[in-house]
Amino acid sequence: MKQEEYQELTAYMQDCMSDAAHDKEHVWRVLGYALKLAGELKEPVDYDCLITACLLHDIGRAAQFKDPSLDHAAVGADMAAVWLAEHGYSPEFCQAVRSAIRSHRYRTGGRAQSIEAQLLFDADKLDVCGIMGLFRTISYCDHVGEPYYTVGKDGLVEFTASTEASVVQEYCYKLRHVGERLYTDGAKRLAEELSHQLDTAVNSVVQQANFARAGLAELENLLL
Amino acid sequence: MKQEEYQELTAYMQDCMSDAAHDKEHVWRVLGYALKLAGELKEPVDYDCLITACLLHDIGRAAQFKDPSLDHAAVGADMAAVWLAEHGYSPEFCQAVRSAIRSHRYRTGGRAQSIEAQLLFDADKLDVCGIMGLFRTISYCDHVGEPYYTVGKDGLVEFTASTEASVVQEYCYKLRHVGERLYTDGAKRLAEELSHQLDTAVNSVVQQANFARAGLAELENLLL
Repeated sequence: MKQEEYQELTAYMQDCMSDAAHDKEHVWRVLGYALKLAGELKEPVDYDCLITACLLHDIGRAAQFKDPSLDHAAVGADMAAVWLAEHGYSPEFCQAVRSAIRSHRYRTGGRAQSIEAQLLFDADKLDVCGIMGLFRTISYCDHVGEPYYTVGKDGLVEFTASTEASVVQEYCYKLRHVGERLYTDGAKRLAEELSHQLDTAVNSVVQQANFARAGLAELENLLL
Repeated sequence: MKQEEYQELTAYMQDCMSDAAHDKEHVWRVLGYALKLAGELKEPVDYDCLITACLLHDIGRAAQFKDPSLDHAAVGADMAAVWLAEHGYSPEFCQAVRSAIRSHRYRTGGRAQSIEAQLLFDADKLDVCGIMGLFRTISYCDHVGEPYYTVGKDGLVEFTASTEASVVQEYCYKLRHVGERLYTDGAKRLAEELSHQLDTAVNSVVQQANFARAGLAELENLLL
């Protein structure tokens, strides 16, 4: 890929994500993870396709935020294919990037077919592993008005996937299971290590909140 | 304190913090930590003053968000004293609560005089220790548009207090030092343990971001 193509792609990505500082830094991390993972593989990788798919994988986010019935992976895949075709990329290249972006979503994407699609999927998921995954989940919950945790009838933090949405619930529902869905060995190895750090942090915060909540039980003796 | 007084205080607090779900849960944690810490002390504690000061300690937050030149501790202390006087509490009680709220702020508060003021200070600071402190710092940075981290000329995360504001910078500047300012032995002990968890989590996330950023260096070989 030529420097100027890369600059143009980058500018288009920034343009699509102009109101989300976190999301842009996420894109750089995804590209970085993907290049690291690609470097460990024995099979050949189409780096132009990989770089392009990484840079543009989340350009459909704004559309999904405006209309939550939309799937940012499907929207972004189409947006990327249109933009690339307009900028003179070959139909095969447009299709390869479109397909990679389309399959990157955890919840809805079909199985990633090409190695580039698998690398994008894994790189994107590595960024919800570990403490970075916790950071991003907190920001997402802030954005949509969800709390850190919910409190059960016993007055303690509900530490399960079957509650109202919260940071802790998202950890139980998705974050702790992300590693199971990865394609490449390199990503699986990394995810295992990151997962352990995440588990420790979430357990700590639940323990901290419960310590404080246990103090509230004292009110029973103090209020007349 | 009577149940009905507690309910009335709680309703006033909720009313003052109607747009901040996180902040309300913070208030419950502060009250919980304070009651836990108070239970460990040998000296007598005025629980009515402590409960009231904990519940109302952040009611000046909204004013400070609107006008950052205001100090939420000073504003909240005055608001609390006025509200309490209007609701028939004694001048001595109003003054004790006012003084405790006034001195709870890390950056500007004078030294906490009474044991109730010291317990409020310590309880409030425990909630920026540990992983909970990280959660709250991320939310704050989201709110004011600050990033998770900044990147230096070497392409890596800046892990120092002397950079633009970010979650990592706030950790270096404030969070890692909060334990040094606590009053009670119980809080100091807790802070030490929580601090260790926070250090581990922040080091992990910086390492994770740097791992990804190191992958970006590959672009030098891939771009023509």
